[in-house]
Amino acid sequence: MAVAKHTYIVNQNILDMEYAVRGPIPQRAAELNKEGRTTIPCNIGNPQALGQKPITFYRQVAGLIENPAEITRERRLKQLIDRSEQDDEQLKNLVLYSDYVLDRAETYLRLSGTGLGAYTASNGPLFIREAIARFINERDGFKSDGPLAANPDHIFVTNGASESAKYIIELLIANPHDGIMIPIPQYPLYSATIKKAGGTQVNYFLNEEQGWILNRADLEESLELAKKAGTRVKAIVVINPGNPTGAILPKETISEIIEFAQDHQLMIIADEVYQENVYGAEFFSFARVLQDRPVPLFSLHSISKGFYGECGHRGGYLEIRNIPFSDGSNIPFHEIILKQASVSLCSNTVGQLLVWLMTSPPEPGSEPYELYTTEKTLVLNDLYEKATMIRQAFEQMDSVRCFGRTGAMYLFPRLDKLPAKSTDFDYCMNLLESTGLTTVNGSGFGQKPGTSHLRIAFLPPKAMLETMLPEWIEFHNRYVNK
Amino acid sequence: MAVAKHTYIVNQNILDMEYAVRGPIPQRAAELNKEGRTTIPCNIGNPQALGQKPITFYRQVAGLIENPAEITRERRLKQLIDRSEQDDEQLKNLVLYSDYVLDRAETYLRLSGTGLGAYTASNGPLFIREAIARFINERDGFKSDGPLAANPDHIFVTNGASESAKYIIELLIANPHDGIMIPIPQYPLYSATIKKAGGTQVNYFLNEEQGWILNRADLEESLELAKKAGTRVKAIVVINPGNPTGAILPKETISEIIEFAQDHQLMIIADEVYQENVYGAEFFSFARVLQDRPVPLFSLHSISKGFYGECGHRGGYLEIRNIPFSDGSNIPFHEIILKQASVSLCSNTVGQLLVWLMTSPPEPGSEPYELYTTEKTLVLNDLYEKATMIRQAFEQMDSVRCFGRTGAMYLFPRLDKLPAKSTDFDYCMNLLESTGLTTVNGSGFGQKPGTSHLRIAFLPPKAMLETMLPEWIEFHNRYVNK
Repeated sequence: MAVAKHTYIVNQNILDMEYAVRGPIPQRAAELNKEGRTTIPCNIGNPQALGQKPITFYRQVAGLIENPAEITRERRLKQLIDRSEQDDEQLKNLVLYSDYVLDRAETYLRLSGTGLGAYTASNGPLFIREAIARFINERDGFKSDGPLAANPDHIFVTNGASESAKYIIELLIANPHDGIMIPIPQYPLYSATIKKAGGTQVNYFLNEEQGWILNRADLEESLELAKKAGTRVKAIVVINPGNPTGAILPKETISEIIEFAQDHQLMIIADEVYQENVYGAEFFSFARVLQDRPVPLFSLHSISKGFYGECGHRGGYLEIRNIPFSDGSNIPFHEIILKQASVSLCSNTVGQLLVWLMTSPPEPGSEPYELYTTEKTLVLNDLYEKATMIRQAFEQMDSVRCFGRTGAMYLFPRLDKLPAKSTDFDYCMNLLESTGLTTVNGSGFGQKPGTSHLRIAFLPPKAMLETMLPEWIEFHNRYVNK
Repeated sequence: MAVAKHTYIVNQNILDMEYAVRGPIPQRAAELNKEGRTTIPCNIGNPQALGQKPITFYRQVAGLIENPAEITRERRLKQLIDRSEQDDEQLKNLVLYSDYVLDRAETYLRLSGTGLGAYTASNGPLFIREAIARFINERDGFKSDGPLAANPDHIFVTNGASESAKYIIELLIANPHDGIMIPIPQYPLYSATIKKAGGTQVNYFLNEEQGWILNRADLEESLELAKKAGTRVKAIVVINPGNPTGAILPKETISEIIEFAQDHQLMIIADEVYQENVYGAEFFSFARVLQDRPVPLFSLHSISKGFYGECGHRGGYLEIRNIPFSDGSNIPFHEIILKQASVSLCSNTVGQLLVWLMTSPPEPGSEPYELYTTEKTLVLNDLYEKATMIRQAFEQMDSVRCFGRTGAMYLFPRLDKLPAKSTDFDYCMNLLESTGLTTVNGSGFGQKPGTSHLRIAFLPPKAMLETMLPEWIEFHNRYVNK
C-alpha cells in the first residue's frame, strides 16, 4: 500500500538549530553500537556512562525517600540489634544506613510534606531554595543577613542547568535583532537556544594561546561589530570553568567582564556548572566577584558535573542577582520566569532532591562525612589524573597542542596538521571508525577560522585509557601524515 | 543605598502568556498558607499532595535502582533465612521485597547499562520505548508484527506530557499566522504554549449540554472562521478524557474528528493522559480508532494521572503515527523532535523508569500482582466515589449544573447564578478566602461567552470532603444570593 506523505511548513529556527554534542559523530557511534562494535563515549560529559560511581550518600537518601517503608524496616533492624542480648553479628551485617542518612530522608519527607510524587512549587520547594541560598552564601562569603545574601525567591530549581539557560534566553529574545554574546568556542546549548528563540548570536573569541582567557578589548570589538550590524545586545554568556575549553577564569578576568557588562548595561549569564572541577585551582563565582556592583547576574549550577555526575537525574538551579525588570510592564524577571516554569508545572523531584543534597552535604563529624569526602576526593583526583594522561598523549601526536589549565571535564586540543581538504569533522569521524573513540569536532563548538580542534571528555577509566591512547596516537600520526 | 533598576525589553509572547492552574488564585492560596491558614489544593490534578498513596510496586523498584546495594542486602537477607535451621521469624519479618521486584530492578540496571545517573538517548532508552510500543499494541489490539504496530523509533520519553506538547507545538508554529485548534474549555498548557511560540490559537467549542462532546459542524465552523482570518491551521488538539471537563469521548466522535482532520489535512494532537480515569467507561485511543487512515497523529501519555499519580517524577511519552515531513527540506518529524530533545540532553531517568513500569506492570500471577491490582482498584474507586460526593453537593447549590460523564480528575460545573458584576474568578477567590478550597475559575480554561464555571480536582480524601462540602454549599448559597 502506498502511504500518503504529509508535508508541513515547520519552524525554520528549529530546522536550522545545531547541536553537535549529539550530532552526526555520536549518531554514527550509535550505529556502530547497533552493529556490535564497542565505542567510548567521550563526546559528552556523562561520567556514570563511563563507570564513575555515584556518591553513596546521595543514592542512599534518594532510595529511602522513593520507598519510605525502607526507613521503617531499617529502624526495626536497628532496634532488633539493640534489644538482642548476645552480639548478633548476623543482624549487624545487614545494616545498610547510618542514623544520619535515615534522619536526612525523614527530614526531606517532613519538609516537602508530599514526598517525591507530588508537583512542587514551580520554582522548587522553599526549603531547597533556602539550602541553595545558604550554599551560595557560604561558598562566596556572604553574610546570611547581609545585603549580598542570596534570596531564595530569586532562585529556581530546574531540570538541569539547560532548562535554566532556556528560560533566560527565551525571555531575552524579543525580536530577531536581539543578541546575546557567547564565547567561541562555546557549549552549543547556547547557540541552539538563541537560534531556536530566533535571536542573534554575537560571538566573542577566547584567546587560545593565553589559555583560553578572554580580555576586554576582544569583548568591546565584538560588541561594536554587533551594534554596527543593528543588533541590540542584551547579555553576555560566560562559561567558567570553560566548556569545551576547560579554562578556569582568574578573578581579574571575571572582574573585567563585570565592568564591561556594567558599562554597556548587559546582563551576565554565568554558566558555573563545573565549579567543582578546578583540580586545585581556586574557583571564583561571578556572584563573589560581583559584590555590590549593580549588574544583573544569572548564575547556573547543576548536579550533572563536579564529583556528583548525576546527569540522568536532571537537577540544577538558577540564581538571579540585581533582578532586572521588563520594560514598560515593569515586572521583575523572577516573576516572569516563575510563570515560564509554571507551564511545565515543576522540575522533577528527584533532581530537586539531589540539588538539596549537593548544597547541604553531610557535615564534618557526621556519620557519612568520611565516606562522602573519600568518594569526592577519589573522583576529582581520578579525573585530574585522566586529563593528565590524555595531555601527555598529545605530546606524542604530530602537531597537537592543548592550551590552558585543566578544568571542567574536557580537553580541547588544536590539530595543527590535517591532510589537505580534511576538516576536524573528518578527523573525528575517522578516529571513531578506526578506534571507537567518540569525540566532537571543534567546529561543533565554534573556533577561530582556519583552526581545527576536537573536544574530548576525560572520563574513561584509566585502564581503558591505557589501551585507547596508544591506538589514538597511532591513528593520529598515520592520519595526519597520509 | 539606592539600587539601580534595570529594565529590558523582553519577549512579549512570554509576558502575554497565561496559566491559570498556577495563576492568581493558587498564588493567593500560597499566601494564605504562609499566614498559617490551611487550604485544600483542588486547583491542580496533584493526587499525592492530597494524600493519595503511590503504587508500592513502582516505588520499590525505583528505590532499589537508586541504591542497588539494597538489592544485594535483600538477597543476603533471603539467603540467611534459607540457610537458617530453625524458622527465624525475626529475619522473615525483615523481608521487604519479592524476588520479582528484585529481578525487575536488576533488569532495569542490566538493560539501561548505566543506571539512573547517566544521560540516556535523547528520546529515552530503546528498551523503554519498546515497552511503550508493546503497551500501545496490547491496549489497542495491534499485532506486534502488523502494519499498525507502534514503532519505538517514533516514540519519545519526555519530562511529563507537557514537554511532549511543547516539542510539537513549537515545531508546528512557523509564523504568527500558523494556527492550532484547541477545545474550549481547554487545559491552558495548550493556549500558553501556542502563545509563547507566537502562533494563533483557534478555538472550537465543546457542547456542554451534550456532555462536553464535540461535533463536526462546530469544527468546520471554527476552521472556516480561522481560514477567513488568514490563519493557516495545522493541527487540532483533543483532550480525551477531557481537562477541565472530564468528558469521555465516544468512539463515533473520535472517528468524526479523524475524518475532519483527514479532509482538511490537519494533524491530530491527542492528549490521552487521563486514559485510565474513565471509571467503568471504555477508553478509545485515537490510535485505535484511526486504524490505517493516513492522518498524522501525536498522542501523549503520562505517569502523573491515572491511578499512578506520580506527578513529581515528571515522566511521559509521545507516540507519532503517519510521520509527517518538513516541507522543502523533507525531514521526518521524529528526526526533528529528536534534535529538539537533544538540546536538553534527555528527560529525567526516574520519570523514564516509571514510564517503563507503567507500560510493563507486574504480570498476572507474579508476586506483586495482587497488591498492585488492589491498590489500582482502590485508587480508581476512591476517585469515582469522591467525584460522586461532589456532584451530589452541587445539587444542594443554587443554580449549579454539572454536565457529562465523570472522567479524568475534574468536575467543571456551570455557575448559572452569580451576584451582579461578579465573575467566576471572584467566586473562586471568595470561595478560597471563606473556606480554603482552592479551585480554578472557568475563564482560566476558556468558556462560552456569558457562562461561568469552575474546575475542581476531585482529589481530597473523603473525610475531608465531608467537612468541606457543607462549608462550600453554605458559602455558595450565601454568595450567589447576596
